[in-house]
Amino acid sequence: MSILIKNGRIITAVDDFTADIYIDGEKISAIGKDLEIPVDKVIDASGRYVFPGGIDPHTHLDMPFGGTMSSDDFETGTRAAAHGGTTTIIDFAIQSMGHSTLEGLDTWHAKAEGKACIDYGFHMIVTDTAGDRITEINRLIQEGVTSYKLFTAYPGVLYMDDAMLFRTMQEVGRKGGLVCVHAENGIVIDEIVRKAVSEGKTAPKWHALTRPTRMEAEAVHRTASIADLAGAPLYIVHVSSYDALEQITLARSSGMTVFGETCPQYLHLDHSYYEQEGFEGAKYVMSPPLREKWNQEELWDGLISGDLQVVSTDHCPFRFKDQKILGKEVFTKIPNGAPGIENRMSLMFNSGVVEGRISLNRFVEITSTAAAKLFGLFPRKGTVAVDSDADLVIFDPERTETISVNNPCTHNMNVDYNAYEGFKVTGIAETVLSRGKIIVENCNFCGTRGSGKFLKRSLFTEA
Amino acid sequence: MSILIKNGRIITAVDDFTADIYIDGEKISAIGKDLEIPVDKVIDASGRYVFPGGIDPHTHLDMPFGGTMSSDDFETGTRAAAHGGTTTIIDFAIQSMGHSTLEGLDTWHAKAEGKACIDYGFHMIVTDTAGDRITEINRLIQEGVTSYKLFTAYPGVLYMDDAMLFRTMQEVGRKGGLVCVHAENGIVIDEIVRKAVSEGKTAPKWHALTRPTRMEAEAVHRTASIADLAGAPLYIVHVSSYDALEQITLARSSGMTVFGETCPQYLHLDHSYYEQEGFEGAKYVMSPPLREKWNQEELWDGLISGDLQVVSTDHCPFRFKDQKILGKEVFTKIPNGAPGIENRMSLMFNSGVVEGRISLNRFVEITSTAAAKLFGLFPRKGTVAVDSDADLVIFDPERTETISVNNPCTHNMNVDYNAYEGFKVTGIAETVLSRGKIIVENCNFCGTRGSGKFLKRSLFTEA
Amino acid sequence: MSILIKNGRIITAVDDFTADIYIDGEKISAIGKDLEIPVDKVIDASGRYVFPGGIDPHTHLDMPFGGTMSSDDFETGTRAAAHGGTTTIIDFAIQSMGHSTLEGLDTWHAKAEGKACIDYGFHMIVTDTAGDRITEINRLIQEGVTSYKLFTAYPGVLYMDDAMLFRTMQEVGRKGGLVCVHAENGIVIDEIVRKAVSEGKTAPKWHALTRPTRMEAEAVHRTASIADLAGAPLYIVHVSSYDALEQITLARSSGMTVFGETCPQYLHLDHSYYEQEGFEGAKYVMSPPLREKWNQEELWDGLISGDLQVVSTDHCPFRFKDQKILGKEVFTKIPNGAPGIENRMSLMFNSGVVEGRISLNRFVEITSTAAAKLFGLFPRKGTVAVDSDADLVIFDPERTETISVNNPCTHNMNVDYNAYEGFKVTGIAETVLSRGKIIVENCNFCGTRGSGKFLKRSLFTEA
Amino acid sequence: MSILIKNGRIITAVDDFTADIYIDGEKISAIGKDLEIPVDKVIDASGRYVFPGGIDPHTHLDMPFGGTMSSDDFETGTRAAAHGGTTTIIDFAIQSMGHSTLEGLDTWHAKAEGKACIDYGFHMIVTDTAGDRITEINRLIQEGVTSYKLFTAYPGVLYMDDAMLFRTMQEVGRKGGLVCVHAENGIVIDEIVRKAVSEGKTAPKWHALTRPTRMEAEAVHRTASIADLAGAPLYIVHVSSYDALEQITLARSSGMTVFGETCPQYLHLDHSYYEQEGFEGAKYVMSPPLREKWNQEELWDGLISGDLQVVSTDHCPFRFKDQKILGKEVFTKIPNGAPGIENRMSLMFNSGVVEGRISLNRFVEITSTAAAKLFGLFPRKGTVAVDSDADLVIFDPERTETISVNNPCTHNMNVDYNAYEGFKVTGIAETVLSRGKIIVENCNFCGTRGSGKFLKRSLFTEA
Repeated sequence: MSILIKNGRIITAVDDFTADIYIDGEKISAIGKDLEIPVDKVIDASGRYVFPGGIDPHTHLDMPFGGTMSSDDFETGTRAAAHGGTTTIIDFAIQSMGHSTLEGLDTWHAKAEGKACIDYGFHMIVTDTAGDRITEINRLIQEGVTSYKLFTAYPGVLYMDDAMLFRTMQEVGRKGGLVCVHAENGIVIDEIVRKAVSEGKTAPKWHALTRPTRMEAEAVHRTASIADLAGAPLYIVHVSSYDALEQITLARSSGMTVFGETCPQYLHLDHSYYEQEGFEGAKYVMSPPLREKWNQEELWDGLISGDLQVVSTDHCPFRFKDQKILGKEVFTKIPNGAPGIENRMSLMFNSGVVEGRISLNRFVEITSTAAAKLFGLFPRKGTVAVDSDADLVIFDPERTETISVNNPCTHNMNVDYNAYEGFKVTGIAETVLSRGKIIVENCNFCGTRGSGKFLKRSLFTEA
Repeated sequence: MSILIKNGRIITAVDDFTADIYIDGEKISAIGKDLEIPVDKVIDASGRYVFPGGIDPHTHLDMPFGGTMSSDDFETGTRAAAHGGTTTIIDFAIQSMGHSTLEGLDTWHAKAEGKACIDYGFHMIVTDTAGDRITEINRLIQEGVTSYKLFTAYPGVLYMDDAMLFRTMQEVGRKGGLVCVHAENGIVIDEIVRKAVSEGKTAPKWHALTRPTRMEAEAVHRTASIADLAGAPLYIVHVSSYDALEQITLARSSGMTVFGETCPQYLHLDHSYYEQEGFEGAKYVMSPPLREKWNQEELWDGLISGDLQVVSTDHCPFRFKDQKILGKEVFTKIPNGAPGIENRMSLMFNSGVVEGRISLNRFVEITSTAAAKLFGLFPRKGTVAVDSDADLVIFDPERTETISVNNPCTHNMNVDYNAYEGFKVTGIAETVLSRGKIIVENCNFCGTRGSGKFLKRSLFTEA
Repeated sequence: MSILIKNGRIITAVDDFTADIYIDGEKISAIGKDLEIPVDKVIDASGRYVFPGGIDPHTHLDMPFGGTMSSDDFETGTRAAAHGGTTTIIDFAIQSMGHSTLEGLDTWHAKAEGKACIDYGFHMIVTDTAGDRITEINRLIQEGVTSYKLFTAYPGVLYMDDAMLFRTMQEVGRKGGLVCVHAENGIVIDEIVRKAVSEGKTAPKWHALTRPTRMEAEAVHRTASIADLAGAPLYIVHVSSYDALEQITLARSSGMTVFGETCPQYLHLDHSYYEQEGFEGAKYVMSPPLREKWNQEELWDGLISGDLQVVSTDHCPFRFKDQKILGKEVFTKIPNGAPGIENRMSLMFNSGVVEGRISLNRFVEITSTAAAKLFGLFPRKGTVAVDSDADLVIFDPERTETISVNNPCTHNMNVDYNAYEGFKVTGIAETVLSRGKIIVENCNFCGTRGSGKFLKRSLFTEA
Repeated sequence: MSILIKNGRIITAVDDFTADIYIDGEKISAIGKDLEIPVDKVIDASGRYVFPGGIDPHTHLDMPFGGTMSSDDFETGTRAAAHGGTTTIIDFAIQSMGHSTLEGLDTWHAKAEGKACIDYGFHMIVTDTAGDRITEINRLIQEGVTSYKLFTAYPGVLYMDDAMLFRTMQEVGRKGGLVCVHAENGIVIDEIVRKAVSEGKTAPKWHALTRPTRMEAEAVHRTASIADLAGAPLYIVHVSSYDALEQITLARSSGMTVFGETCPQYLHLDHSYYEQEGFEGAKYVMSPPLREKWNQEELWDGLISGDLQVVSTDHCPFRFKDQKILGKEVFTKIPNGAPGIENRMSLMFNSGVVEGRISLNRFVEITSTAAAKLFGLFPRKGTVAVDSDADLVIFDPERTETISVNNPCTHNMNVDYNAYEGFKVTGIAETVLSRGKIIVENCNFCGTRGSGKFLKRSLFTEA
């Protein structure tokens, strides 16, 4: 199949020009003025931006947590992603304690295959490095899994002590991979949580009040120090606070190879959401939690200055009605996570570009290009260039929608609430292509279950 | 005329892919795989990089200084630039004290017209803001002169006091232009110079020893503070030292709109050049002077972190034999400046890319794209994209040359020495196109005197 | 005359103990437990603190400003100081343009002699360094004037350009003296003022709005850089803002010899005072002006961390009724300055010690000891030690007074308003001794006009 | 017994004057000019300084380590201390795993009682907080043990994880005590050590090469963050490197209550000592290890700026011949520690005062006063003031000695080498008094075994 996208304003992380894009099969074959090539389909993109498809490198689909599963699986989750203009995700496969990472990878392949509607890769959450396990990294690299997530949070579940961190980081660094870290000092946080619960502080807001920003910053500083010593590049996921960002900035300016990601929830929502009536706050129970509002502009400054490189969603939805409610008695039982995979591009375009904080180029960089480069997907993904996959978003910069669980143009996620309910956004993905196939047209999904392919990713050091 | 560049590895500030470029007239018309379009000329770029033509936003051609003129005029200077892979310069027109800036602009138009071999723009050096002069900025903007250079150095010649700085910055900020500053505290430096000379310290090295880095840093901090208050974006030219860079970094991290440029001489040469036998040091008499060697890696770090955005040359050549010699008796009479316009791209490619400090993309960004964006030339210049000017460099990444005044492949500047004499560089501009015309082919100039056009530049705020 | 002060709790910048003090003549002769020495007078200091007399190193008595004179002369001003527990002042003698500094010194000696009720020294405000004037510093040192104030504010009046600053600093540094600087960029401020006035912004608040903190910080950075180069220690007077303090902190941490002084007005009053009805704001017209309230805790932090060393008053009173009113039409005509010499010790004790910000020792250090050490008065002044002058304050830590122009216990200054009207303070100087003579007893002045002596001060480098 | 010290130049952390000191029994009774009081003994201190006796708050006497005991017990160690001008030590009692801290305290009382020649206090090293143990802090406070040392080093021996750190810090903070931390990330260090040993890197220098400064800095940042959250003041012992100091500086400037101590070895010795022939390096095996030489001036800068407050010795001697040799095969078996208790005052006087880095007052502050204030001994110890203990050092500022194991004036420690062998120092403690008794006279010990008393210390919050 061949497509000609006519007269779109093409935006990459650097360029900005109006031209035609000729797609032959799955890839962009040519970009030019007034291309006259016979094709199967012509799309008129006049008055529209053409962006590289969004890349969301932080999702948790079909993930077990506290006895339940995140409510979007690879079908519903990737379909919602496509609706929002995201054409690639990198989800987190999990190693079970006492089991091989390769088993974990198999499990996640099984979850995704035949279901995903857009392309996907996997990071591996490493939890157990006993014996020879660490050498599995070689195998994972061959399998195209080149980034590894380590936790300083969740003791007894995903937590790694400093010795395991160091050993794993050394191995990853040696092999050319990238280490991702969820940075919160879970050990101290558990102490605070225990005390809070013992004092009867069980409402959702105590989830936030027991996870101070200082303990996020501490884990950033510690893992940056250890990664530097171990010779591994480090990527801090879901930076939520100024305190944490400050440590990233200091590490970077001292020459360490440290990167940072934040998420729309930390840029748009804040602690006051926990102060709502009744159990409403449970909708926002995630880790790290939402912070005091003043942190938002600091995080934007990090995106502007370049100390933060990526905006992901940490999409991890649980239904309010029958899942979040598990923590009705005590916040520690509330499944951690919130939905967002569908709304990232519009939220970032609206707050970033429309409100004047960042340029169009920077918008593309933080929602797509930077992730592609850091995670070994570039230039296949993350740009609009000849020979790249034709993952494209034709974006209407003037259409305004109000995000709502009831608005089919903004909510196709399998969850009974939207974290941004009532937010008005200008800028909507109108038509979305995945490897040359139209999968969303005028906000209607027209893709195919299972058409998404697994992406073997290159090493960080090859980028 | 139409050209097809086949199979080059095209590098922009973001992209990196192999394709064909179709040039129809002066512009890039299409980029694609295996383009089959009948053209006047086909260039085989296999095994070569295709870069956007270099942009050197800091040159002084045919410039009066201390009773003599810089030895390259717009013909010889731009021809040498083309040899080195630079296809655009922005030169500095000078307002004479007591005269209109528009007169200055006319003078510089007269110098360039009919001579320049590549495209060029002008900044305006503002020296006199008496009466209504400041309102001339409106006229300059209409003329496409949208950046203005102010000096804190050279009291009595180009120096502006803080009141003039503030007034001019306010006007430029209001109009959407960009302020460039030569940052050295010339008032204090003149005190130190006077004392040194009175003590018989007259050799070239005293030029450097009387211009401490602290006085460069002071002027950066001061002008950044004043520009911030005045609401003007600020671009510090030729940052030479860690002390100055530190002030840029601090200003940027406090949210000020401050940019920084450095030059190959500050990255490759150092204070020891002044310690040579006899009058040799005069070759390196420039302002700011070369610094202690340890500053070099700090400046590289600034380029890597992004606190410095641009590498220009401050090309301002004077012949050793009959011009530099004017300062034989006392260093204050040595014309300030050194040649470099021709060697920038090879030096930066060699030290940056070959030696592993920066990526290919970042090389393109600091030698071309960033200047285009800051100075209102983008997307016409500074990228390889459809509808951009076909200013292209086909670059041989493996060819090695030794820079020498005697090597016609590295020295076509009209000056009797090369500041980088003996430096071995890998990476040479092989073929150079200016607006679709081949002007250098296999290191031979084949362009036309006067074919370069004046570039009306957009405002900073329109970028 | 001999005095025995019994059972006071003696506080120095380090010590804290209860003992008797034996004063024989003008000096402390012994300190001991249960001293039994026959004396002329015994003072029971049980339940009281005994502090070294306060030192206020920044006063402007009998000073000409804009056609009028500050309303306290050396009699009324020093009497008020004594009431408040201050036993030493260092006032600013002024060199008139075109005249010798020694003439200025003579003028100030004439103002003080026979009038001062407490001991006093002089700094010299240097305004003119033409010809050989700079060598007068030698003579000034012999006269005991070892600190020199330079202005970056008030162009055309007291302002020095960077060349004069550098030359003067070099000379002072060479001789071992201390440079004091009023740090505001008067050149830029005058531009802002001119514009404001031309726009009809003439009310008192515009005095503050035309003197941005950034221009205070700029002058700190600039003079610190120049002083460092010149080899002179630097003391920034009346630091009013976080921006300025930050530059002091940075300078100090980079190893420069820079000190900072703040004043009670910057710790207790804020910009809102200018927003009062009518012309009230004129009472607070001083330079630098009062700042946004949040700066106050930052300045306290500077005092706590040690980046600020001294609290002076910059006492410079003008009567509201017939002096401040000179600027009724336009704020630029309002005499700059406010009263405070009498209230410093109580304000700092109350806000510092009673409110728990600083220790008793630190209170003594910032109100007395540090100034004595920096300005060459130690150990004669600034401590409670054997052989030191018996300048002592017997302080009632529990007595509370409301500061008011109508309260004779808090207002003996010759000015018709009190800047701290209505402030309630706990901690009052009860009995004050100057060189062994009781000059205040139970809040009543009992000293003698003219008994204060001129203090020849040592060099900074001898401290 | 009564003593009159005549005409000494008395130096405190603030004062500097010449007077007589009258000692009646154990305390200073009076200080005055020309005191004429009949006494048992008159000491002529003309031409001498009189300092408050040195306080060394970090010693390990009679301490078990790796199967052996530090070679100085409370008799030999305190006698050596007295020789050097130190009249108070605070030693570290150790809680054994599984046992009460009170048992540990008993053990240390037994070690000291009847043996110590100068006064002493104890910190408690807390290793086990299981069950109710944490509440023992109440008892310890009643016993006068108000500071508690926690280790992030030595996993399996003294190491505390972050949960224990947090719990203990909370309890100490609540009670008003002070937390001391040995800051090195022992977990990561053990990983590095294990690898080094497995590669046959067993010589003494590998002790240093396996303990990077970054892991010291990491532990400082982490414990400062946790202490801040826990509400406890923090004192970092034996800061050895710039990296660690930088974290203290950052913590302090962000308003945390963090203090720092360094030791003469980190100011005078460096990594090159490990590079000596044969097993010599073992003499310098201590934790943290000696660092690259450039760290020394950074640590001095910390003492000058006030970011470091105290100089202790971490005296922990092991004989080279039969104790250090235990690690002949592998550095991990070398007992950690070095001697120094005797040489601290002379080393700091020589390098600090004689070499011009610090003032006499600051010398007293860092060797005595600051420790007294932080550890609840002030004003009993740490100053020369009425009612303070007559712990005094009459110090000859001009006498020069060469430190050597063979020089009885510099080495009375029970160990067969001196870490500063060959260092020439100017400034020697001539006469030393402990609570009014002369215990060293002209470098000869004349005190009494067992005359030192245990010091119950006040709480940090009472200081």
